[in-house]
Amino acid sequence: MNFTLTVLGSASAKPAPGRFQSAQVLCVHGRFFLIDCGEGVQTRLQEAGISPMKIDSIFVSHIHGDHLFGIFGFLSTLGMQGRAAPVNIYGPSNLGPILKFYKSYFWDDSFFEIKFNPLNIKEPEVIYSTKSFEILAFPLNHRIETYGYIFREKEPMMNVRKEKIDEYGLSLTEIGTVKRGEDVIREHADGGSETLPFAELGYKPFEPRSFAYCSDTAPFPKEAEWVRGVDLLYHEATYTNEYADQAAKRYHSTTLQAAQCALEAGAGKLVIGHYSSRIRDIALFQSECRSIFPESYAANDLDVFDIPRH
Amino acid sequence: MNFTLTVLGSASAKPAPGRFQSAQVLCVHGRFFLIDCGEGVQTRLQEAGISPMKIDSIFVSHIHGDHLFGIFGFLSTLGMQGRAAPVNIYGPSNLGPILKFYKSYFWDDSFFEIKFNPLNIKEPEVIYSTKSFEILAFPLNHRIETYGYIFREKEPMMNVRKEKIDEYGLSLTEIGTVKRGEDVIREHADGGSETLPFAELGYKPFEPRSFAYCSDTAPFPKEAEWVRGVDLLYHEATYTNEYADQAAKRYHSTTLQAAQCALEAGAGKLVIGHYSSRIRDIALFQSECRSIFPESYAANDLDVFDIPRH
Repeated sequence: MNFTLTVLGSASAKPAPGRFQSAQVLCVHGRFFLIDCGEGVQTRLQEAGISPMKIDSIFVSHIHGDHLFGIFGFLSTLGMQGRAAPVNIYGPSNLGPILKFYKSYFWDDSFFEIKFNPLNIKEPEVIYSTKSFEILAFPLNHRIETYGYIFREKEPMMNVRKEKIDEYGLSLTEIGTVKRGEDVIREHADGGSETLPFAELGYKPFEPRSFAYCSDTAPFPKEAEWVRGVDLLYHEATYTNEYADQAAKRYHSTTLQAAQCALEAGAGKLVIGHYSSRIRDIALFQSECRSIFPESYAANDLDVFDIPRH
Repeated sequence: MNFTLTVLGSASAKPAPGRFQSAQVLCVHGRFFLIDCGEGVQTRLQEAGISPMKIDSIFVSHIHGDHLFGIFGFLSTLGMQGRAAPVNIYGPSNLGPILKFYKSYFWDDSFFEIKFNPLNIKEPEVIYSTKSFEILAFPLNHRIETYGYIFREKEPMMNVRKEKIDEYGLSLTEIGTVKRGEDVIREHADGGSETLPFAELGYKPFEPRSFAYCSDTAPFPKEAEWVRGVDLLYHEATYTNEYADQAAKRYHSTTLQAAQCALEAGAGKLVIGHYSSRIRDIALFQSECRSIFPESYAANDLDVFDIPRH
């Protein structure tokens, strides 16, 4: 049951040597989700060995070109390759007319269905759900309407310790109670009762894993709360601390602001990207983040971050 | 006075490993012209060491995505970099609404002016002219309205052999005559005349150089005539000969058709590209062309073809 992030593009407004613009793919339990579609996304997917045909849905943060201009070529390729299954696209409502215009000039009626799901969300809300995981969108704080996304496993059913079934002679009903994570309470004929605590009878098979994507955004009060406890946080860090004024002016984050969000959220690991092309020393981005949050990693294109089960 | 082609993308409908989609840049006498704008064009320009700010004008063959989807990111980057000079774009008239839509969503009023020049051309016509060279457009034979382009130096003024000025005592008027490439005719007082042949008095300092771009197109009767005598012919060869049926159906050319055009046109050199992703053996494209036209070269991304003066 994998949960793996592949960074496809780590540059910001314009590509840099070896860096394409924002795009990532997250694989959750065998399903592939594309998050943002900077130019060259299909080339990077090829290089990562991920067939575009495998992409389940696309999540667009906002309609700035460096997060979007790869979507046209990507969709056209899917169409030409004969994809049959619809593609769901989630993003701000102003993405709707862009997709409509694209289709009016570059689409063939024989191609698959593009299902656009416009978001109008003020706080974290589930937009996609399966038996084992769900995806939420939440608003970010950028110059235009922008959304972040959280991918998280659902709380699992509890496991029952086999030896306790025999020891206490647990009934099927009682086993169901343990699986829901509850204590078993046995009523006796004399009116008394006995509590068999969940902690003795069962255990949680794994902690649900989660990933949050925050790009592009300036810091905002609720951000850390909304991504609280994620195992992996991708946060844009367009500027080093020296350019904090520039970051504020353009509604972006600095290294220190990204790291502060990870710290306050209690994230497991921070991955940064979306580096301004004016700063070439990527090691500096990473070291600045680590001064606040040691588990910080400055992404390069095609870097893979796996979240193992624990 | 350079005349140099750099191939930026040699793939066709979708990118292939190491190959981006159609884009080229031609440098003529220090001016840079972008011909088609497949996705990733600005990345390839960086890799070729050509600043996007240097691009004088853009020539779009047709509005299929693999020739166009890089134009949005390219123009946005120019805008963000503070380009002041207008950019002229030439292409079929259906490119107009696409550029208009792009600007309505992704353009800043402070950016430079995009001057779109819609083409409506039935046979070769000059669309751009300087003192020393000119650019022509001509229709190709594709599924939608598509144009090829010819870039050619103008005929130079003739040079006068210095020793002949003294030997014949040439007057300023007679020197002007030689520079126009004409014989000098001297009328004598007795009614007779004397002809001093141009071939003795002057010479052509260089042969004008030329480049033609033919993509995408199926063969058509006038094609070789329209590109007659070019030093360098870029011609799409989407398919090897085995796939001639597919080529005809999709209004593309095979290797042999591209080579036949070069042969009939008397081109100096043929460069091919726009390879179908289904055929991975690029050497086969080249060898098939060479069976008809030995001076054939199968382009890779970032290949440079210089046309020296002769």
